Amino acid sequence: MQENNSVGIVAAQTAHFNSPLTLKSGAVLPQFDLVYETYGTLNADKSNAVLICHALSGTHHVAGKYSGDDKYPGWWDNLIGPNKPLDTNKFFVIGVNNLGGCHGSTGATSINSATGNPWGSQFPVLTVEDWVTSQTLLADYLGIQQLAAVVGGSLGGMQALQWTIAYPARVRHALVIASAPNLTAQNMAFNEVARQAIITDPEFHSGDYYAHGVVPRRGLRIARMLGHITYLSDDVMDEKFGRKLKQGIQYSFDAEFEMEFYLRYQGDKFAGEFDANTYLRMTRALDYYDPALAFDEDLSLALRKVEAQFLVVSFTSDWRFSPARSREIVKALLDNELTVSYAEVTAAHGHDAFLMPDAHYHNILRSYLSNVQV
Amino acid sequence: MQENNSVGIVAAQTAHFNSPLTLKSGAVLPQFDLVYETYGTLNADKSNAVLICHALSGTHHVAGKYSGDDKYPGWWDNLIGPNKPLDTNKFFVIGVNNLGGCHGSTGATSINSATGNPWGSQFPVLTVEDWVTSQTLLADYLGIQQLAAVVGGSLGGMQALQWTIAYPARVRHALVIASAPNLTAQNMAFNEVARQAIITDPEFHSGDYYAHGVVPRRGLRIARMLGHITYLSDDVMDEKFGRKLKQGIQYSFDAEFEMEFYLRYQGDKFAGEFDANTYLRMTRALDYYDPALAFDEDLSLALRKVEAQFLVVSFTSDWRFSPARSREIVKALLDNELTVSYAEVTAAHGHDAFLMPDAHYHNILRSYLSNVQV
Repeated sequence: MQENNSVGIVAAQTAHFNSPLTLKSGAVLPQFDLVYETYGTLNADKSNAVLICHALSGTHHVAGKYSGDDKYPGWWDNLIGPNKPLDTNKFFVIGVNNLGGCHGSTGATSINSATGNPWGSQFPVLTVEDWVTSQTLLADYLGIQQLAAVVGGSLGGMQALQWTIAYPARVRHALVIASAPNLTAQNMAFNEVARQAIITDPEFHSGDYYAHGVVPRRGLRIARMLGHITYLSDDVMDEKFGRKLKQGIQYSFDAEFEMEFYLRYQGDKFAGEFDANTYLRMTRALDYYDPALAFDEDLSLALRKVEAQFLVVSFTSDWRFSPARSREIVKALLDNELTVSYAEVTAAHGHDAFLMPDAHYHNILRSYLSNVQV
Repeated sequence: MQENNSVGIVAAQTAHFNSPLTLKSGAVLPQFDLVYETYGTLNADKSNAVLICHALSGTHHVAGKYSGDDKYPGWWDNLIGPNKPLDTNKFFVIGVNNLGGCHGSTGATSINSATGNPWGSQFPVLTVEDWVTSQTLLADYLGIQQLAAVVGGSLGGMQALQWTIAYPARVRHALVIASAPNLTAQNMAFNEVARQAIITDPEFHSGDYYAHGVVPRRGLRIARMLGHITYLSDDVMDEKFGRKLKQGIQYSFDAEFEMEFYLRYQGDKFAGEFDANTYLRMTRALDYYDPALAFDEDLSLALRKVEAQFLVVSFTSDWRFSPARSREIVKALLDNELTVSYAEVTAAHGHDAFLMPDAHYHNILRSYLSNVQV
């Protein structure tokens, strides 16, 4: 059954952009690549394209597998495929690794042609606005003038929102899931601690660790362990791990509680896979995103040019991007007399809920997307 | 006014204990010191002694100043003094640095007489139970058979609770503030990340950094920054810092938001003052405390020998030791038909509220303590 509605074996592609891109910071990327995948078929009038925007550690590999032996499919495979809520019989779905990412798009790990060395510390700090601009260039490249929808959770939801603000004519629907119009001070504080763990790791070498043949693994591991605490709800942590000990109390600082094994495993895994400079930039983009900043913190005013219709979804146990933050978006959309559906889904899994195949949640997405005309 | 009801200039004293102390882990301390302070006068029948138990980073210096030039008084000076809620005209108040501390009591920084070097990694892992046992020895040393009250917030509240469980005849009142009968998985997870930041700091040297003339400052700094996030409520962080920038967006990883300056300042300060081995042990004691563990997680059963009367206080915005956790203690006390007062104080400051001079909170303590007979 799972295999029957999979997009099947997929392959990543690379789009090269040779025109300079000026970023919000003023920095200029002379050229760049975006790596992407597509699922389904672009229709004749190119009206059925859906862009998936990823969050902090996501990639362009959203659905399907790279080979029959692949252990895991793309990160949102439970959502995307033939007859799935985001139905690839109807939609042409695009996954893209954000600019500055470490999975194929140009980023800190890429070679800077001006020096012949990895960009490292010299790779610019990116913003959500920059990502959206680069994504419009990818749409151009694919010959798509207007997206049927932009879909994203968490930081991905910020990109979906930003599409509707910056390119109102180029997106008909935005699905903003487990997101917020900006980060709270507490959220930014967690990002700051994570970044400081990385930056103060002696193997960070001011961001130019590639030349030293090392990676700031210790810092990245701490950052990820901390992240995992905030992705789960307190209740789910209690339910999943509680105070369970693996082998009784050992009076040591080794992992003894099951939760400790879990966090260390997640931290070690991530530290072996993800690029530290990329992590810094992804979290900084989260910190900086604040479309209302230029409008005296009036989000309604910031959204006054939006034309898209919206589905906003939040999860009751998400304390990192709480329902209250989603309601701020809904309120500002309604202030502008826009069409918005809002669902506050009862879910135990905290922020991670947006990645889970909860039936109620998936039915909401299915229902909304079935009404999107292509 | 503040000076008029201060305990004035105080001095720490040291009690030497030359008999071996067997800890819960089985480890034996051949001898140890406890550093302590006292305020007020012990009455003739020694019935007016109140012990203050400190939390994670607290000390024996609870009230007063060491000299007229001292910038800050002891950490709970707003509570303790002549005519203050804990009135030193009535009570003889004792502050003690917990065993394993780094402010004068025997701990990892002390010289192990067997080797002539600092204990370092060889200093045993302590428990709340061990602290309470050592505190009874201090009471013996001071000639006090029964305490009028034991008072503590957070980890200090766990010690107050443990006194009533382990030494029911030796304590008449327990004031358990912003505490819990054990940590949640989320709380333990924050401790684990903090410890891992310290342990993986290359300058930790497996806990024997003293011999290398360094301290794991980076790890301790991260641990403290993280701690500070959890001591404040989300709302207070938003109110105090929000998204305020010091000088506008710089597109850097330097401190730019005011909250970032605050966290770095707190982290740096702590890393220059506190001992890393002590921090590991304090957090482990927090993790391990769970009086109901030996009773199939039945807290009511764990409290069946308690005789003391209780005041339990929690704060609405405390998400680290939430009111629900205090209510568990209240419920278990009531199951045992004990006398318990409970106050859930509306306060914005999160876990830190227990240290603040909130009028409602202080009136509750004043009122309760005025009814304690001496």
